[in-house]
Amino acid sequence: MGSESSFSRRSLLKAAGVSGAALGVAGLGGFAGVANADESTGKAPPRPSGAKSVLGMPFEAYGDTIRVGIVGVGRRGTSLLRTMLNFPEVQVTAVCDINPDYVERAAGIITDTGRPEPAKYAGRGGDWSDTEEHYQLAVQHSKQARAHAKGKKADEWAEEDYRALCARDDVDIVVNVTSWEWHHPICMVAMLEGKHTATDVPLAMELDHLWDLVNTSERTQRHCIMLEQVVYWRHHLQLLNMAHEGVFGELLCGYGGYENEGLAAAFDTLNGGRYPEGWRRRWWYRRDGDFYSMHGFCNIAMYMDVNRGDKLDTIASMSTPQIRKTAFREEHVPSHDPAWDDPPYIKGDRCLSLVSTEKGRVIEVSHDEDVPSPYSIVHWLTGTKGSFKDHPARIFLEGKSSGQYDDLSDHSAGFDHWLWEDHGFDGDRAMFFRLFQDMRLGRAPDIDVYDSATWTAPIPLSTESLKRNGQPVKVPDFTRNRWQDYREWIDRPNPEA
Amino acid sequence: MGSESSFSRRSLLKAAGVSGAALGVAGLGGFAGVANADESTGKAPPRPSGAKSVLGMPFEAYGDTIRVGIVGVGRRGTSLLRTMLNFPEVQVTAVCDINPDYVERAAGIITDTGRPEPAKYAGRGGDWSDTEEHYQLAVQHSKQARAHAKGKKADEWAEEDYRALCARDDVDIVVNVTSWEWHHPICMVAMLEGKHTATDVPLAMELDHLWDLVNTSERTQRHCIMLEQVVYWRHHLQLLNMAHEGVFGELLCGYGGYENEGLAAAFDTLNGGRYPEGWRRRWWYRRDGDFYSMHGFCNIAMYMDVNRGDKLDTIASMSTPQIRKTAFREEHVPSHDPAWDDPPYIKGDRCLSLVSTEKGRVIEVSHDEDVPSPYSIVHWLTGTKGSFKDHPARIFLEGKSSGQYDDLSDHSAGFDHWLWEDHGFDGDRAMFFRLFQDMRLGRAPDIDVYDSATWTAPIPLSTESLKRNGQPVKVPDFTRNRWQDYREWIDRPNPEA
Repeated sequence: MGSESSFSRRSLLKAAGVSGAALGVAGLGGFAGVANADESTGKAPPRPSGAKSVLGMPFEAYGDTIRVGIVGVGRRGTSLLRTMLNFPEVQVTAVCDINPDYVERAAGIITDTGRPEPAKYAGRGGDWSDTEEHYQLAVQHSKQARAHAKGKKADEWAEEDYRALCARDDVDIVVNVTSWEWHHPICMVAMLEGKHTATDVPLAMELDHLWDLVNTSERTQRHCIMLEQVVYWRHHLQLLNMAHEGVFGELLCGYGGYENEGLAAAFDTLNGGRYPEGWRRRWWYRRDGDFYSMHGFCNIAMYMDVNRGDKLDTIASMSTPQIRKTAFREEHVPSHDPAWDDPPYIKGDRCLSLVSTEKGRVIEVSHDEDVPSPYSIVHWLTGTKGSFKDHPARIFLEGKSSGQYDDLSDHSAGFDHWLWEDHGFDGDRAMFFRLFQDMRLGRAPDIDVYDSATWTAPIPLSTESLKRNGQPVKVPDFTRNRWQDYREWIDRPNPEA
Repeated sequence: MGSESSFSRRSLLKAAGVSGAALGVAGLGGFAGVANADESTGKAPPRPSGAKSVLGMPFEAYGDTIRVGIVGVGRRGTSLLRTMLNFPEVQVTAVCDINPDYVERAAGIITDTGRPEPAKYAGRGGDWSDTEEHYQLAVQHSKQARAHAKGKKADEWAEEDYRALCARDDVDIVVNVTSWEWHHPICMVAMLEGKHTATDVPLAMELDHLWDLVNTSERTQRHCIMLEQVVYWRHHLQLLNMAHEGVFGELLCGYGGYENEGLAAAFDTLNGGRYPEGWRRRWWYRRDGDFYSMHGFCNIAMYMDVNRGDKLDTIASMSTPQIRKTAFREEHVPSHDPAWDDPPYIKGDRCLSLVSTEKGRVIEVSHDEDVPSPYSIVHWLTGTKGSFKDHPARIFLEGKSSGQYDDLSDHSAGFDHWLWEDHGFDGDRAMFFRLFQDMRLGRAPDIDVYDSATWTAPIPLSTESLKRNGQPVKVPDFTRNRWQDYREWIDRPNPEA
């Protein structure tokens, strides 16, 4: 627990207007009132023998051909597949899903573009309505992947097809668009088989899994990238440029919230097919927490240059009662639906968190997919010279606004990212353009395993704080004390301009 | 600290959709991870000998004459004085201020209405630019008031004129519109002299002072009311009616924030005269915390029927660095200004808190008077059937809104409070109308000392949580276990309809 001295230090910093980074000190140990979520992981564990940082590590230059294997071609995976196929350098050489129909559909989408037929993996198809069985299989695979990382490769895996896909010689990067609990084992196996990997959000759901992925990325020198497209949205990139140009002054705080009612989809009752295995529900009875911190939060962390001059320090979380999910089921779900066999839901309807940074900034974070609301990323940024708030997108700047918020467009001229000026891509397309551009040219990716783990950390750590009735828990420094220095990333100039 | 069992209990409640209130249990003791701010006050202290609850206690029926003594007739006090004089039952019999010019101005305002000249108290006038001296005098008076409450009345107080005002026979209620640190001693003396008292926000700044006021109200059977006018705003009363009618379903969470840049006023440099003693600044070097939780937060607490079926449980706070206040001084304050002699400011530029309730609801709270922004009460309310957000005021209701937030007015028809239908008052005027109506008719006030203390508690408790690096601290139950039952209050029907 430590002494009160750290608070005094922080007060002093605040009084003097001095940033924590100026001290050049990290990992001062426990703070009064703050808990480590896990004694073994609250601080950075030692780097595995033979491993080294992948900070700034460039890809091999793949030139005009990047060979992609994709695991998971349901609704989201198919959408990302279509996006990737816009880029001529992409060859999708292998496709895997638990649903053979989805694999066939994906293969057709690929050949329709004139590309060769991919290798197809769909070893176990059929009925996945028993969501618990599917989850437990992922847990088993995670354990096998951890053993594999220690040199103990599983004997039998013929039927587990994503592993065969990962072992292929004609795959450069494994794109993982599966349900949350499968992110860890699939990314692990991909790296252990020598492949880069990129996964849909979140990076993983458990703190030790995040460390597994960091350690394995370092040991294998393969990138492990979270496919967070929201940071590439036009106005988010404008705000990044504005923040870096000092338009907001010194950044003080932000709010990153996710409001997107998904109960109809999660119960697969009203609009059919979005989560055909009902997999989101299984997390509701497994634990309480913020299950989706990325959108919103990652933008704020990006503006604050987290891992590039600042770092996350603590997170404290509180959650509301769980009422709406059972009420929705009562009202909308037929009595024969397997959702009625779910264990009691313990996830609160909304989870709210406060995240502090080493420089003393504060980020409010919220997650809510259960309450009736329009899709909304609550997205605020406040500095000493002004504030931005979304939605609706509005901005107030000292000396430039008078008495009320202006439209963002009144002040964003000249701050567009070249991605938008040159291409006008949406988030997914901009994200893949940059990933494949960096792979083609042999540059470091915009978003690395450290960013991916840091942006995801509020998921397991909110659960840890909730277990402690809202006590703040420390966020580990995944960079292992390399967070102080600015490294160019998303706002780099276009190398092909 | 206690065991983990309380968390399990809460999880169970959430899983089962059972409210804490259904258990009929309060004060279970410590929660894992949660601190009591003060062992003597984290739980309700024993009621003083001879004291009894003032819950629901009616005023004496004052009929057509209510005699008011007002202490503090600066900018805000003068505004409230003018508002009170709208009501024919009000006779302002005495006026006090440290500034004799203000007293004369107030007396003129009173006689201009045809009312008699009030008694005038302005014992110590002159230069209050030494803000620290003025603060220390208040501290001394608070100590004397506490001794007075124990029967040790100060020997000499001739020059301390508010005390003489409080001792007059022709005053029924003392209205206190002084700087924050004077709220406690003046309200204490008023009650000890047998007067009801009402004070501008906040009720007080220290946790033990809040208990003093509760205990003294109970011992003297005099009301002590915080003049919180924001709860009387038209759309806030609409929301109260809508919440009580179940429009939002079960309430889950809310956000009460206060954004109102006040540096020019606090430094008294650019717009002159709002805080001529610079008194707000003295809190910046005294401590960190949320200094102004009421507006915004009190509305959410009102909708949730806090103290009337729910109660506050814990608060966890984080604050940003202090940068803007010194930057503003550097840019705008002349070098000869006394503000340059202030000790270092330790109050962060924005304070952010999470407050939990016994029913497991969560309220986000923020306070920011330092960062450039338009005046804004951030004001959200979310239940299982929909959400309200302000500003701009918008609402989304399940089955009634389609895909986006609507204007509040699209759904508020029929929910106006009779105060607005009958009178169209603004907040201050509605607040005083109700106070004086309850006094005339001999009814219990809308807002009692328990509400006032509860709505103010985040101020000292945010400071306590910040000292603990964001650890949640328990909010005491000022009602002493009388929070479970609904008591009619602001939404009572008009007794004169």
